[in-house]
Amino acid sequence: MNKVTQSDWWARNNLDYRDGRLFLGEQDLSRLARAAGTPCFAYHAPRVIEKLDGLHNALDKHGVRHSIYYALKANRYQPLLTYLRLKGNCGIDACSPRELLLARQVGFQEPEITYTGTSVSNRDLDVVAAHPEVQFNCDAISTIHRLGERCPGRRIGLRVNPEASASYLEHISYAGEKATKFGIYADRFEEALSVAESYDLHVTTLHFHSALGYLNPQLDGFRTILDHVAGMLEKAPQVKCVDIGGGLGTPLRAEDAPLDLEAWAGLLAEFANPRQLEIQIEPGDYLVKDAGALLVEVNSVEEKGGTCFVGVNAGFNLTNLHAFYRFPLVVTPLCLEPGAETRKVTIAGNINEGVDTLAEDIEMPVVKEGDLMALLNIGGYSVSCGSDHCMRGDFSEYLILD
Amino acid sequence: MNKVTQSDWWARNNLDYRDGRLFLGEQDLSRLARAAGTPCFAYHAPRVIEKLDGLHNALDKHGVRHSIYYALKANRYQPLLTYLRLKGNCGIDACSPRELLLARQVGFQEPEITYTGTSVSNRDLDVVAAHPEVQFNCDAISTIHRLGERCPGRRIGLRVNPEASASYLEHISYAGEKATKFGIYADRFEEALSVAESYDLHVTTLHFHSALGYLNPQLDGFRTILDHVAGMLEKAPQVKCVDIGGGLGTPLRAEDAPLDLEAWAGLLAEFANPRQLEIQIEPGDYLVKDAGALLVEVNSVEEKGGTCFVGVNAGFNLTNLHAFYRFPLVVTPLCLEPGAETRKVTIAGNINEGVDTLAEDIEMPVVKEGDLMALLNIGGYSVSCGSDHCMRGDFSEYLILD
Repeated sequence: MNKVTQSDWWARNNLDYRDGRLFLGEQDLSRLARAAGTPCFAYHAPRVIEKLDGLHNALDKHGVRHSIYYALKANRYQPLLTYLRLKGNCGIDACSPRELLLARQVGFQEPEITYTGTSVSNRDLDVVAAHPEVQFNCDAISTIHRLGERCPGRRIGLRVNPEASASYLEHISYAGEKATKFGIYADRFEEALSVAESYDLHVTTLHFHSALGYLNPQLDGFRTILDHVAGMLEKAPQVKCVDIGGGLGTPLRAEDAPLDLEAWAGLLAEFANPRQLEIQIEPGDYLVKDAGALLVEVNSVEEKGGTCFVGVNAGFNLTNLHAFYRFPLVVTPLCLEPGAETRKVTIAGNINEGVDTLAEDIEMPVVKEGDLMALLNIGGYSVSCGSDHCMRGDFSEYLILD
Repeated sequence: MNKVTQSDWWARNNLDYRDGRLFLGEQDLSRLARAAGTPCFAYHAPRVIEKLDGLHNALDKHGVRHSIYYALKANRYQPLLTYLRLKGNCGIDACSPRELLLARQVGFQEPEITYTGTSVSNRDLDVVAAHPEVQFNCDAISTIHRLGERCPGRRIGLRVNPEASASYLEHISYAGEKATKFGIYADRFEEALSVAESYDLHVTTLHFHSALGYLNPQLDGFRTILDHVAGMLEKAPQVKCVDIGGGLGTPLRAEDAPLDLEAWAGLLAEFANPRQLEIQIEPGDYLVKDAGALLVEVNSVEEKGGTCFVGVNAGFNLTNLHAFYRFPLVVTPLCLEPGAETRKVTIAGNINEGVDTLAEDIEMPVVKEGDLMALLNIGGYSVSCGSDHCMRGDFSEYLILD
C-alpha cells in the first residue's frame, strides 16, 4: 500500500483539502453532498472567470485586439450563463437555434452572440435570419446560398477547414488527413467567396476550429494551422477578423503542463497584429472543465477478477468523457485522513453497459461503501450531453459563487 | 456511378419499397415524415412481436422451458411497452429503480419483472425491497449483504461473470480477458452462496450476460460460456433457472446472416434439458433494433476534401450507435426512383463534434437537399440513451401498429 504524502497535482488555491475536507472555492463539498444528495454537480463560478481573465490578460499583454465568446455547448447551466453575462467579459458562441435562443433568454444581446452550425437546415437559417445582428459563420457553400436567399447584404463569416489538427487526443480530430464535415476547404474557398458576393453577403470573418484540448505540445500544430489560414486570408483582403474557435486544453494528468498562455498569445500576436486582424475565440471546455466537480457516493467496493471495482451512484450517462473519449478523470474522496493509504482501483458506474467505467486503474486513497467522492475535470461536456440512459439521469447542479 | 438494381439485403416483407416509397409495415414513411416533421422515430410494433415469437417458437420446438423478459433499457417508449404487455408473451427486465417503477406503471406485474443492477446503492435496494415479487439478481457480494439485511428469506438470483465474451463488436465486451464490473467471478462463487445462506436468501437463479449482438460466428463462444456456467451449477444444485441475459444480434451488414435460432435453441436445449433447467432470456436490442427507423431530412449535400457529405437534421445525440460503437447503420431514401444512381457518401449529423457522423463511406442512392431518408437498425439504444447535446434533442416517436 502507498500513502498520500503531498497535495495532488490538480490542487490549486480554490480546489484543495482543508483539514481533510475537499473545498471548491469556499464550499465544503462533503457538506454540499450531504445537503444536496448525490449525484450532484458543483460549478465554481469564480474559477470560470479566472480562466477567462487569463486569456484576456495574455492577449492584452501582446496587444492582440480580441473578443471572447463562451461556447455554451460545453455547459449550459442557466445560472452559470447569467453569471457570465454579469461578471464575465464574454459573449456566447451558439451552434443551434435553441442555443441561440437560450443565449438571448439568459440575457445576452444579439451582437454578443456568434453562431457556427454544421449540417444547417433551412429552419435553422430562418431562426438566424430573425437575429440579424448575430454573427453567423457559414460552414458550407450550400449554407451561403440558403442564407443569401434569406438575408442578402448581411455580414457573415466563413468557417474554413484548417486541414490540420492539433488535438490532445489524437484519435479525435476536427480536421486533418481524413476529410471532415467542418468548414470550407481551400480548394473551394474562392468559389465560396464568389457565391457570397453573388448574394451581396459581406465576408468579414474567417472562422476555424482545429482541435480538442490542445496544450503546449500541440502549439506547433496550431502554428501550422495559422499559416494555412494566412494563405486563405490573402485571397480575402476584406476579412478583418479571424475566429480561432475553441479547443484550448486543461491539464488532465500529473505530467500535463498548463497551456502556456504567453506562448499562445505570442503566436496569435505574430499572426494577427501585422495584419491588423481582430481575433475571436470560442473557448467552452477550457473555461468550465476544471471549475466543475461531480459528487458521488460509493455504493460498493469489491474485488472482481483481480481488479478492485469501486461502484458509484453515477454512470457514463452523466459524464461520458472517459467511457467514450478516454479522457482521464481525477477521482478523490471528499474527506481524507492525513497519511491515508492508497490503492489501485477502477471506478465503475451504475449503467448496465460494458463501457461504463469512469476511471480505470487509478491510484487513489482507499474508500469504503458510503464514502463520498468527487470526480474532477467534468465541468464541460457532462450534463450538456448527458442522458437518462437506464433511467439513471437524476442529478442536481449547484453554482458555487465564492 | 452505380445504379440500384435489386432489393437491398435489409428488405423484408414489412420493410421495403412499394412503388418507390419506403414502407414500414403498412406505413408509408414519407407520408409520416411529412406529417410528423423530422427527426422522427418510427417503431413497427408487429415486427417486435415477430422477433419475440421467433425466440419462443425455436425454444418450444427444442422443448426448452423458458420465459422472456424484454430489457427495456433498449427502448422505453411507453406506448411500445404497453403494446408488449398486451400483445407479447414477455415480461420486463429492469436495471434501475426508475426502470422497475416504469415497468409497473405501464402495466406489468411484479412477477413479470426481473431486475439486474450494477453498482447498486442502498436506495436502489430499498425500492427493490418494496417489490418483493420481482426477481432480483445480485451482481456483487456487497449487494447480497445489503439485500439480505433488508429482505431475509427472499428468493434471489446471482449474476455471475462468464469470464468469456461472444460479442459482434470485439472491442466491446461484458466479460473476457480483462476484468469487468459485472457479476461474481468463479473464484468467489462459493463465498457468494454462503453469504446468501447466512441471510436465508434462496439462490434459485444464475444470471449472466455475455455479449453484444452475437450472430452465428459467435455461437461457439456462447457454448464456451454455457460450459463455464455449468461448472458453477454443480456447486449450486438448488438452482433451477438460468438467465442468459440478452445480447442476441441482428444482421447489420449485407454479409451478416441472421442468427440461426435453430442452432441457438439447440445449444440451450443441450444445456438446459438434461439439467431440468428453466431458461430466462432478456433480449432488448434484438427485439426492437430492426423494428425502428429514424426519419431525417437532407439539409446539405457538399463535396469537402474529396468526400461527399450528406448533412442531415439529426445527430449522434439521437443515435450514437455509429459515432461511439461503430455499428454500421443503413441509410436509404424514403422515395426511390427505379434505376436511381448511387454514390459513396458520408452521412454527417448537425452536432458540432468531430465524431458526429451517422454512417461513413456508404454507397447509397443519390440524394439532394430537401430529400427525406431513413436510418435503419436504430430501434434500440437510440432515444433511450439520447441527449440534448447542442440543444439538438428535439424529435418525435410513433408506434406503427399495422
